[in-house]
Amino acid sequence: MSELWYTEKQTGSYGITMKVKRTLHTEQTDFQYLEMVETEEWGNMLFLDGMVMTSQRDEFVYHEMVAHVPLFTHPNPENVLVVGGGDGGVIREVLKHPSVKKATLAEIDGKVIEYSKVYLPEIAGDLEDPRVEVKVGDGFMHIAESENEYDVIMVDSTEPVGPAVNLFTKGFYAGISKALKEDGIFVAQCDNPWFKADLIRQVQSDVKEIFPITRLYTANIPTYPSGLWCFTIGSKKHDPLAVEDSRFHEIETKYYTKELHKASFALPKFVQDLT
Amino acid sequence: MSELWYTEKQTGSYGITMKVKRTLHTEQTDFQYLEMVETEEWGNMLFLDGMVMTSQRDEFVYHEMVAHVPLFTHPNPENVLVVGGGDGGVIREVLKHPSVKKATLAEIDGKVIEYSKVYLPEIAGDLEDPRVEVKVGDGFMHIAESENEYDVIMVDSTEPVGPAVNLFTKGFYAGISKALKEDGIFVAQCDNPWFKADLIRQVQSDVKEIFPITRLYTANIPTYPSGLWCFTIGSKKHDPLAVEDSRFHEIETKYYTKELHKASFALPKFVQDLT
Amino acid sequence: MSELWYTEKQTGSYGITMKVKRTLHTEQTDFQYLEMVETEEWGNMLFLDGMVMTSQRDEFVYHEMVAHVPLFTHPNPENVLVVGGGDGGVIREVLKHPSVKKATLAEIDGKVIEYSKVYLPEIAGDLEDPRVEVKVGDGFMHIAESENEYDVIMVDSTEPVGPAVNLFTKGFYAGISKALKEDGIFVAQCDNPWFKADLIRQVQSDVKEIFPITRLYTANIPTYPSGLWCFTIGSKKHDPLAVEDSRFHEIETKYYTKELHKASFALPKFVQDLT
Amino acid sequence: MSELWYTEKQTGSYGITMKVKRTLHTEQTDFQYLEMVETEEWGNMLFLDGMVMTSQRDEFVYHEMVAHVPLFTHPNPENVLVVGGGDGGVIREVLKHPSVKKATLAEIDGKVIEYSKVYLPEIAGDLEDPRVEVKVGDGFMHIAESENEYDVIMVDSTEPVGPAVNLFTKGFYAGISKALKEDGIFVAQCDNPWFKADLIRQVQSDVKEIFPITRLYTANIPTYPSGLWCFTIGSKKHDPLAVEDSRFHEIETKYYTKELHKASFALPKFVQDLT
Repeated sequence: MSELWYTEKQTGSYGITMKVKRTLHTEQTDFQYLEMVETEEWGNMLFLDGMVMTSQRDEFVYHEMVAHVPLFTHPNPENVLVVGGGDGGVIREVLKHPSVKKATLAEIDGKVIEYSKVYLPEIAGDLEDPRVEVKVGDGFMHIAESENEYDVIMVDSTEPVGPAVNLFTKGFYAGISKALKEDGIFVAQCDNPWFKADLIRQVQSDVKEIFPITRLYTANIPTYPSGLWCFTIGSKKHDPLAVEDSRFHEIETKYYTKELHKASFALPKFVQDLT
Repeated sequence: MSELWYTEKQTGSYGITMKVKRTLHTEQTDFQYLEMVETEEWGNMLFLDGMVMTSQRDEFVYHEMVAHVPLFTHPNPENVLVVGGGDGGVIREVLKHPSVKKATLAEIDGKVIEYSKVYLPEIAGDLEDPRVEVKVGDGFMHIAESENEYDVIMVDSTEPVGPAVNLFTKGFYAGISKALKEDGIFVAQCDNPWFKADLIRQVQSDVKEIFPITRLYTANIPTYPSGLWCFTIGSKKHDPLAVEDSRFHEIETKYYTKELHKASFALPKFVQDLT
Repeated sequence: MSELWYTEKQTGSYGITMKVKRTLHTEQTDFQYLEMVETEEWGNMLFLDGMVMTSQRDEFVYHEMVAHVPLFTHPNPENVLVVGGGDGGVIREVLKHPSVKKATLAEIDGKVIEYSKVYLPEIAGDLEDPRVEVKVGDGFMHIAESENEYDVIMVDSTEPVGPAVNLFTKGFYAGISKALKEDGIFVAQCDNPWFKADLIRQVQSDVKEIFPITRLYTANIPTYPSGLWCFTIGSKKHDPLAVEDSRFHEIETKYYTKELHKASFALPKFVQDLT
Repeated sequence: MSELWYTEKQTGSYGITMKVKRTLHTEQTDFQYLEMVETEEWGNMLFLDGMVMTSQRDEFVYHEMVAHVPLFTHPNPENVLVVGGGDGGVIREVLKHPSVKKATLAEIDGKVIEYSKVYLPEIAGDLEDPRVEVKVGDGFMHIAESENEYDVIMVDSTEPVGPAVNLFTKGFYAGISKALKEDGIFVAQCDNPWFKADLIRQVQSDVKEIFPITRLYTANIPTYPSGLWCFTIGSKKHDPLAVEDSRFHEIETKYYTKELHKASFALPKFVQDLT
């Protein structure tokens, strides 16, 4: 009996392993090693530099939780920027909010967009929506050139290695603050507390220096290291924990609920200690 | 370069894999295949029939969340029963509650207790506490013979295969109800919603027929399938969501907090749909 | 760090494992599961039902040793039949013998031929040679319909499971005898002595009942189980150990030599005991 | 379903993988990382620095072929030295020759001897024989201090990394020549031609400068890389290919035969090209 398995070592001595039906596309792009793989358990999966980016089966968690927490926190999000996120999943969720008039995607690697459209169509499909502008280029530069422009900025980056290394710096958070309007909100994924506690502590500390309201929330993503993923929110004015009930309108979700919106900020003790 | 890795296939096509320093003990007991293994990432780990039971590094999540949620829900837990749980972790947490006068452990497999004491001493150490009575025997029978006796019963079982198969039946829940006092509470682990949705739906449905207050809560356990573990609580009178703030006293924990006590009942939409 | 590895369990508890760059083609054909995979160590590899058939790097051993041992044993091989062998490697070696006027390939699975031409061109290339006739169909039936026709028949089959199950029977060997001319020779791969001793013993015993000269020889094929592969030769008249030195003419090889022709019949004691 | 597998990467992108029942002993000795592991397929196995040294099931090949080829080549071997070989397998085979009066084992790592006696008793058992002298110490130094002393020297070393690095040098071969009597013979394992062609070429070239008769022979060892293992023989006077038939006396073997004695020097073309 023979089998093809893809193993992601999430640390030097621990990982997840997935049975693979076939590789759909593999390519060294200008920025990273891109693999699109068909797995039995999780459907098609996108890997960048050997790290799980998304899978057809559990992608909804990440995309919903990045998008809806800040968008329901902001009273009237109209102009939204997604940095990274070339698979289109965050954009899809953003467009569920009727207040949104424009959603800009700044993805450095056009190949991620190209192959997501082919192999992850239910994730990337809404990139064609007329409200969406896709900019293939450096999100860091795009942020630097923007001022008082966005209601919400979402950073959907890879780990702080490779092309995303600039997206985990104090300078970047300062740029985001400048690019946001005066009541703007930003959110960034910031890895997991079991293997990357130092990173979370650093991001929290850096964001706190710039945003008066800084908070951490979590979501369960089975294919991400430890299954517990963290998101840092930095807000100039609106507190995600103070959202009034009337603010929540109906959207179709599989993970996010208005109860979970607030509950996801209740942290395990050892995670709370990082903030 | 050569390496020894332990791979637990959590489904037929997905699993976790851990680098192993050495096996500490392996034995086919009268009930199951027991493996005590030293891993690099998680420390010593106990496997029963090839399933992760506990690891030194992340055991606190499971043990705290099984114990403290019902114990803080009950106003005055004095007499507590743990079914299964031979590693002693739940007992350790139970003993943190000063109201507890007696904690009984009903573990079917004495070998689990024996080797946990040797290789997981910081988990099993409190089994020697004078308030603890260890009964090596069938928890199902022990329940059947008890009536109006316990304030809280915790079912810390393996999956519903092998020796634990009887612990996932309506008859067992009825027995538990009988064994509990009139304001008693019971909790049972009930696996994860990504791979075992049907099991959770069934347990919820069965417990609801017997307990007026039935609820589901979750915790993040990295070494358990999907990282999101579920617990069903069945209560005759006290609602875990209605605990007054004054009820929470200080205990030392690494995962549980009084905020998380309630937040852990806010479920992802697709999990909520199982209840 | 993430990696894709193909593991062939050669027994229930042992196997080889290869790093995979990408899958080139996977398909359930009418007969078997076909995988064409690009590996780092062995180049492109063909798997049928999860068993290594051939790799670009070590294919020469098998193909040379199947072809040249019988072809140099026969004084004037003109008409040759290859049963199986859809990758074309045996045909390529057969055509190195100038005496050969016609080489027929009887391969049951046309997909093997089709994808070998695409992904293993240096193996399959000579299938286009005018001396070659490719018959896509059941080799067993082709043998049954032939009489006194071939000088040499080579059975390049998969293991005796799936489509090749009939190719390891006494009836098949009798059919081969009938299909051969009066001084004909046949050769068949017959697996390895470490894991399949019983199969070798059986094949030897069966062939001996039909062919006056029956011999076993071996070759080292790293990607095949145990690295030691066996071939049974059945001959009506010519003894492979009695070939005169003048019979050997120059052909270009990477494994076969005239010294090895005879030396490969010197068996390890435990293999000799199977004959 | 969970399983513990030991994977030896024989190259960066290829390896063998074995199901493990349990680790018997693991230890960083003064010289190397020693692992004694119980496998399902091969029985107990000894690994040094992550490389298979020997297994209960296939050890006979290596030990017989190292010992009997030179011992039957020498007309009257009385005084034999084994460098390395702490598991005792070569010594066991040496003692099968009644002419041998003394067999010295020079093993640098006493732990290899100690744990082989415990976990590989059928290999190491004869180390207690009165004809055997065990010297725990540097074989290189022992050779350097010996002159005109031995009839046959066998180098049963690990790969040329770690403690064995000096055993693959021209200086070592010169020392061996000095330590041998005027008609002495030496043999050394020299890895495999598929992954270590350069090493074989170098060893052959170096030994040729010192010994008038230099030859290469092979044996099939399934658990060693590629399954085809090479041995270099250097002889002052006696040619292993010129042994008279009357020289061979009966000994009990599972791999070696007098026919194979000579046939094992018939090399695959690509291996012959390395000599």
